[in-house]
Amino acid sequence: MLAAVTACAAAVGAVPAGSATSAGGGGPLYTDARAGTERRVRDLLDRMTLDEKIGQMDQIAVVRMQGDCRAGGGELVESCMKTVLGDHATGSVLSGGGMGPTRNTPGDWARMVNAVQRYAVEKTRLHIPVLYGADAVHGHNNVLGATVFPHQIGLGATWDPAIVRAVAASTARAVAATGVDWNFAPVADLARDQRWGRYYETYGEDPLLAGTLAAAHVRGTEGAQGAKRVAATVKHFGGYSEPANGHDRVPADVSTRYLQDTLLAPYRTAIEAGAKSVMVNSGALNGVPATASPYLLTKVLRKQWGFTGVAVSDWEDVRALHTRYKVAADYPQAIALAVNAGVDMTMEPYDARRFTEGLRAAVERGLVGRARIDEAVGRVLRLKFDLGLFEHPYVDADRADAAVLGADRDLARRAATASQVLLRNEKGTLPLGPATKKIVVAGDHADDIDSQAGGWTVGWQRVPDGVRLPGTTVLDGIRHAAPAGTRIVRPRDAADAVAQARTADVTVVVVGEKAAAEGEADSPRPGLAADQRALVKSLKASGRPVVVVVIAGRPLALGDAAGTEGLLMSWLPGTEGGHAVADVLFGKANPGGRLPVSWPRRTGNEPVHHQQLPGTNAGAESAHDVAYDFGAGLSYTDYGFDAIGLGSPSVPAGADVRVSVRVRNTGARDGETVVPVYVSRPVSAVLAPPRRLVAFTKVRLAAGEARTVRLTVPARVLAVTPGDLDGSGSPRVERGEYTFTAGERRATLNVT
Amino acid sequence: MLAAVTACAAAVGAVPAGSATSAGGGGPLYTDARAGTERRVRDLLDRMTLDEKIGQMDQIAVVRMQGDCRAGGGELVESCMKTVLGDHATGSVLSGGGMGPTRNTPGDWARMVNAVQRYAVEKTRLHIPVLYGADAVHGHNNVLGATVFPHQIGLGATWDPAIVRAVAASTARAVAATGVDWNFAPVADLARDQRWGRYYETYGEDPLLAGTLAAAHVRGTEGAQGAKRVAATVKHFGGYSEPANGHDRVPADVSTRYLQDTLLAPYRTAIEAGAKSVMVNSGALNGVPATASPYLLTKVLRKQWGFTGVAVSDWEDVRALHTRYKVAADYPQAIALAVNAGVDMTMEPYDARRFTEGLRAAVERGLVGRARIDEAVGRVLRLKFDLGLFEHPYVDADRADAAVLGADRDLARRAATASQVLLRNEKGTLPLGPATKKIVVAGDHADDIDSQAGGWTVGWQRVPDGVRLPGTTVLDGIRHAAPAGTRIVRPRDAADAVAQARTADVTVVVVGEKAAAEGEADSPRPGLAADQRALVKSLKASGRPVVVVVIAGRPLALGDAAGTEGLLMSWLPGTEGGHAVADVLFGKANPGGRLPVSWPRRTGNEPVHHQQLPGTNAGAESAHDVAYDFGAGLSYTDYGFDAIGLGSPSVPAGADVRVSVRVRNTGARDGETVVPVYVSRPVSAVLAPPRRLVAFTKVRLAAGEARTVRLTVPARVLAVTPGDLDGSGSPRVERGEYTFTAGERRATLNVT
Repeated sequence: MLAAVTACAAAVGAVPAGSATSAGGGGPLYTDARAGTERRVRDLLDRMTLDEKIGQMDQIAVVRMQGDCRAGGGELVESCMKTVLGDHATGSVLSGGGMGPTRNTPGDWARMVNAVQRYAVEKTRLHIPVLYGADAVHGHNNVLGATVFPHQIGLGATWDPAIVRAVAASTARAVAATGVDWNFAPVADLARDQRWGRYYETYGEDPLLAGTLAAAHVRGTEGAQGAKRVAATVKHFGGYSEPANGHDRVPADVSTRYLQDTLLAPYRTAIEAGAKSVMVNSGALNGVPATASPYLLTKVLRKQWGFTGVAVSDWEDVRALHTRYKVAADYPQAIALAVNAGVDMTMEPYDARRFTEGLRAAVERGLVGRARIDEAVGRVLRLKFDLGLFEHPYVDADRADAAVLGADRDLARRAATASQVLLRNEKGTLPLGPATKKIVVAGDHADDIDSQAGGWTVGWQRVPDGVRLPGTTVLDGIRHAAPAGTRIVRPRDAADAVAQARTADVTVVVVGEKAAAEGEADSPRPGLAADQRALVKSLKASGRPVVVVVIAGRPLALGDAAGTEGLLMSWLPGTEGGHAVADVLFGKANPGGRLPVSWPRRTGNEPVHHQQLPGTNAGAESAHDVAYDFGAGLSYTDYGFDAIGLGSPSVPAGADVRVSVRVRNTGARDGETVVPVYVSRPVSAVLAPPRRLVAFTKVRLAAGEARTVRLTVPARVLAVTPGDLDGSGSPRVERGEYTFTAGERRATLNVT
Repeated sequence: MLAAVTACAAAVGAVPAGSATSAGGGGPLYTDARAGTERRVRDLLDRMTLDEKIGQMDQIAVVRMQGDCRAGGGELVESCMKTVLGDHATGSVLSGGGMGPTRNTPGDWARMVNAVQRYAVEKTRLHIPVLYGADAVHGHNNVLGATVFPHQIGLGATWDPAIVRAVAASTARAVAATGVDWNFAPVADLARDQRWGRYYETYGEDPLLAGTLAAAHVRGTEGAQGAKRVAATVKHFGGYSEPANGHDRVPADVSTRYLQDTLLAPYRTAIEAGAKSVMVNSGALNGVPATASPYLLTKVLRKQWGFTGVAVSDWEDVRALHTRYKVAADYPQAIALAVNAGVDMTMEPYDARRFTEGLRAAVERGLVGRARIDEAVGRVLRLKFDLGLFEHPYVDADRADAAVLGADRDLARRAATASQVLLRNEKGTLPLGPATKKIVVAGDHADDIDSQAGGWTVGWQRVPDGVRLPGTTVLDGIRHAAPAGTRIVRPRDAADAVAQARTADVTVVVVGEKAAAEGEADSPRPGLAADQRALVKSLKASGRPVVVVVIAGRPLALGDAAGTEGLLMSWLPGTEGGHAVADVLFGKANPGGRLPVSWPRRTGNEPVHHQQLPGTNAGAESAHDVAYDFGAGLSYTDYGFDAIGLGSPSVPAGADVRVSVRVRNTGARDGETVVPVYVSRPVSAVLAPPRRLVAFTKVRLAAGEARTVRLTVPARVLAVTPGDLDGSGSPRVERGEYTFTAGERRATLNVT
């Protein structure tokens, strides 16, 4: 059925659109950059056959164009490219985790992507460039030698949109340098169930914090000045993060109120920052796969929020509507469900034929209308025009290595440092002073760059196998930062560690989780491993100070490893993480990170988050058993809030609220701190959490300095969905009393 | 404001309604039993002041009429009764857990209740008897010497409505003998989150099983032929059972679809069996306390289901709308929310004044209308008339001891025996044969009648303290049942147990949970305790057969205690449980119990149940990691399904489906087995679980016998709520293919 495409391939006299010289010439309108995007989209749509349109709605993995077109790996093969890009007219290609070129260098990446692009631009009838996607979720993590930033959960701990924006921009520049123009980030899901394997990919548990940082991530990505423009992807839309039993992609069940007021809020904030695409949640909510939900993908996303970009389904998810979810009797029905719900592009990584024949069959059966096809293809083409792909489809591969290798390491170190959360510091143990002459650095995670970088990253992918990810481990960092004359002891094993600890000035024991992703990272009992607990417990018995450093993507219940002199949460800090940890330990940096999540004292109470609603049993409060609250984090100085004020003591419902907070560094050391403003309700029509974060900022204050920060709380942040427990109305701001707090300071607002 | 009641007390010339001779005399119409309930209700309402009406809507704990009217305990005091029943005209009294008479005998209970009743009947203006309520959830568990049946979870394992009905009837007779006419049972909640403290109070995880047994419970209660009629209470309506983090009364968050299709189904079945009352869920759903939800208490309960009985709120829950949930600014607002939502009677156990003044204030402020008051009071009065309380308010206290003490022990033993679920039986270890000469009976739970009886029971209540609950422990049962010449060894401690086990023919090790209720029974990691695991592990190393008996209200992850030759789940089998266990061990009974829940292999995957919906990750299936499936249970014989047939291969949507199953006892021993019929869908519009229980029955089959059982699947059981993930439509039966299965046999139905 695709023969028509091939047969007509020579019939259109278009000058290759990928050539800059063609624009403005005698070519078709869509090749003229001055014509404006909408006219170009319309012109190109009018020239396309149905099969060519269908192809634009497909995304395939690059491995299907390599080697024997099946197993993947190796070099691109012309005949495979012909099948995918020529015969099936596929509009987008992605490199999934581990799908790089053999040597996995930036230059080879750029050459690979350029070659794919060149085939599309030069050898297809309409010369439409492809969108090339990758999961660069914290730096260009698929590429060996790329700088790896902290995972999102760590960046969440910075509470700093400026850092997030800079990190995203750096990532986008690295990605662009290798030819990739579509980055599947940020994650705007929430971290609430500590068991969930993708917890660390989020910006934390709070919708305002996560949304604000995801928006900064979008701005950083799409505003980056690199070799190409890069589209951001807000994922996984929507409500991916609370599978019923904590296991990735187990269906979730949530109320419409919780969905609207909490789960969807961060996606919205990120999308309104200009995101050019969203990726759809692989999971199901309330018995309906997100990929097949018109409510999510059309009613909310398009009609309520006005999103005009591309919605792409996740890995094999359209197929799953038939094979796993069984809501479709065959593939054409599955694709019809997805496309009609609002999916514009289908990630069908291994089978272009399945997709094109399936959608064609769906059209022929009358399951999908041509208007919807045009709408979806129009969005895909619009994105390509917006990114300038028709004018600049290629990158200079010879510049890629220089642009990527070791780029922005200072930024990565700053970001990792800002993400460190100091949770415990007894007896003035930290920062380590000049009297520290012997430091024992214990624990497997002290010298484990792969764990430090976390899932999704080259080390975790083992591509190429046997090559060590370049980076600085905690042990490296301590050795580098320790003053001359300090002895750094790396014990052979646990017994040696305990023996050495007895004569140490301090023992730094680095524990945590191994790198993992998605379902493999699920943890039914998210706590320290038994051997780690035992090691810390033995070290505590040494009688000398012990500082526990946790390298993990989530809070870990500490059990009897709790109560050491120091506890530093380092998250998954990336390649420069060792320097960041050392900078905090030695006091070169004053820790300014604050928990973006609640830290449960025990396992078994999941989900645990600070917005747990009040219950009627004494047990209801004790069930919210946290060792450290959302927002917790110590510093080497002290801060206080002098006052909180409101722009007005009374505002009409629907108006934004202006808040000012006077914050002071009361200690003897410069530092950065978070100013969070919470709201609580003395009475409300639907249950309100004990406190709700409604605004925040991060400020740097010199020792003794005070400053008044002014914040605006958008009315939307105060809104909740009214009505009964089956309700699904529109969120609105309830009239009545709102207590705004900054620390112990409070101010009362009357909404009229 | 209540002075009016007292002032007019003498003005109405009614003959005391409690006297049988008054009916049909010259008294007011409502005292005439021949007048018909509706006319009596109307007549009495017309005679009542607003304050008297308000009083009928209150329920208070008996302790407020004892001692100093405050602390509770001791004998009833006339002046306290005057305050409650006279001044506040309170319509109902309850004995909460532990609130019995000092000696806690049946006779003293009857005298206590009679005295309360006598005050109401003889000393109040309109002579309206009280409803007297108690939580007799498995026998009259508040009364010392009453027979204690298995808790509901164990009765769920019988899959036998006839047993449940008989148990409920026996309980009702015991309750009635002590003057109580309102029993707060059954529980129609579902057991899905193993962490939840009230898991054991349910009939299991499946809505059909739980609903069927709860309906039998209602019929048994209300059809019992005892000293009084007894009203059943379907609780806790609705959706109480899945608090967000597994802790009792933490708010839940669920979709309308899950609520309608799954959570609410068993309540409906039980209510349609004629339940005269419901008790409202203490928890909140989706941000709305059930106690304040018009959706639950009016739209669903009254309008959709046509319930006409009394809705009573749970312990202090109306007050909690103000104090805990903070959805009301004061008590009058709280009570207005509850009453307007549909609460007819408020359990305000400690403060009649708070209630009467609160509701009076709510009426005066215009928050509650008089028509709603009349509706609620009408329901309360209707229940009193229906129960015959005006004609027969008292019981013969001298007969109470004989009626209660030791009553129906045979039934309790049968019920406990039918609830035993044999999960593992390797190497023909069970039943124990004549060659068994030495049996070691290890484990604390082997001789612990309080754990065996479980929460809510006299032993757990310690009333009176220091008195041992009469009953048969597992050790007692084994000693009693063992053939002459068998040595029963009860080891001193774990070390002794292991030493003795080496020379034993079998070791029976009894482990489990301690008696607990509500929040105190929450278990973040529901597994065997560490010392129990260690004991079983050591016994396994003895090289001799080990049978683990679990006394617990939920499946416990076994860890390295798994893999013994025998595993018997005995639930919380009550006072006769020791005999039941022994009967199974020695083969006097052939185990016929089947799991009413799924048995998780590990903790941390909660909630775990067989209706987990399919996901898109390989991890989604592995996350449903059960050691034993819902419905599992071995026997000393074997059963097979020869065939399954349908009344018709095709039915119109909305029609009931007739199914026949031929089942055969293929072994050499008589026994009972469950015939479950499941449905699976090859494709469906909303996600369907892998299998859904749609019908079941229990049959007794002699060795070699075969029988064809005929079952009807009501259309409602096949219905699901259609629509998108925000949907809240009415459930309906989807057209298409349905595969009915009994074991490996299957038949396909086409719904047209």
